[in-house]
Amino acid sequence: MEEWDEVEVPDNVKEIFVDMKNTAELMVDLAYSAVLFREKEIAEEVLELEEYLDVLNYHLMVRSVLSARNLRDAERITSILQMAHSIDEISNAAADLAKMVLEEKLHPLVTEVILESEETIGKVVVSPESMLVGKTLDALDLSTNTGVWVVAIRRGKRWLFDPDEDTKVMPGDIIIGRGTRTALDYLKEIARGIIKVMPNE
Amino acid sequence: MEEWDEVEVPDNVKEIFVDMKNTAELMVDLAYSAVLFREKEIAEEVLELEEYLDVLNYHLMVRSVLSARNLRDAERITSILQMAHSIDEISNAAADLAKMVLEEKLHPLVTEVILESEETIGKVVVSPESMLVGKTLDALDLSTNTGVWVVAIRRGKRWLFDPDEDTKVMPGDIIIGRGTRTALDYLKEIARGIIKVMPNE
Repeated sequence: MEEWDEVEVPDNVKEIFVDMKNTAELMVDLAYSAVLFREKEIAEEVLELEEYLDVLNYHLMVRSVLSARNLRDAERITSILQMAHSIDEISNAAADLAKMVLEEKLHPLVTEVILESEETIGKVVVSPESMLVGKTLDALDLSTNTGVWVVAIRRGKRWLFDPDEDTKVMPGDIIIGRGTRTALDYLKEIARGIIKVMPNE
Repeated sequence: MEEWDEVEVPDNVKEIFVDMKNTAELMVDLAYSAVLFREKEIAEEVLELEEYLDVLNYHLMVRSVLSARNLRDAERITSILQMAHSIDEISNAAADLAKMVLEEKLHPLVTEVILESEETIGKVVVSPESMLVGKTLDALDLSTNTGVWVVAIRRGKRWLFDPDEDTKVMPGDIIIGRGTRTALDYLKEIARGIIKVMPNE
């Protein structure tokens, strides 16, 4: 509980709420990545994010409740608390998956299911010849241009979780991305240097 | 309970499991769409999908438990049940959101949060001049080419939820899609006929 003061929490209710939704979605992507690649480091990140999300949820509840002035306010604020609760449930589900990775008790079927879903997770290795190298994620806008959402990047022994738009892609980077199989294959060709131009160029 | 026999359930454990994951993800996208556009029909679809998912979950549990032959099997099968439980929790969260839409008790902040998330939901109207018209979703591959995931299509008074790859886009269709704001704006320009060529052509 004492640690809570150390965590930086956004200042207003809306920002806290948006941060909660983004964090929960990142947790789901990371949890599936952890399962797929049996990566305990990713699983541990999911559990850390779960703690952060609990802090956010607490702050959101306190501030929302304080802002109710009458019965009508209170009723509508309930929908905020309900959605926050739903987001929290999603994050708990992701954390449960992460714990299974740490306990090494995964049935192969769990992996297969992630691989065969409409949206799946893939690993993309960036070759030095790729046009991705040296560009920021903002400039590349991979999500619009390839349909792949960047979940994390492995650089040497380091993980960048939820890399921001100023992150530059480096040769040898391993990008963990979410998308359809077609989208992931397309990004792989760009990362290998087989496709040399991005659609928006 | 009797209704269960009428629902078509995939034949093997893996297919049931994949169907569960895809259904839960569709439910989340539809729940956010229902909130954003205050569409009760979409909210009702979410609740129907929840029932379907419960049937799938039941079949998965029965078949998984039957397949355990020894202690090691049983331990690993627990991870299947755990993941199925996580998926079910996610679907329950989506259903809770859908219920709020039906009860008309939404705080405006809930809408704002969906709009301001990294991935959001958008409505795209297809003009008769758009190059999308007359093509199948398979041929368009919007997910790879624009970064937008098609959640549902409104055609006149009818909704197509989770349209399949053979669905042809028609003039006047309203596409409900999930993606970043940039991706959704890009698809809007294609749908308006301002952008005339898809990147893969």
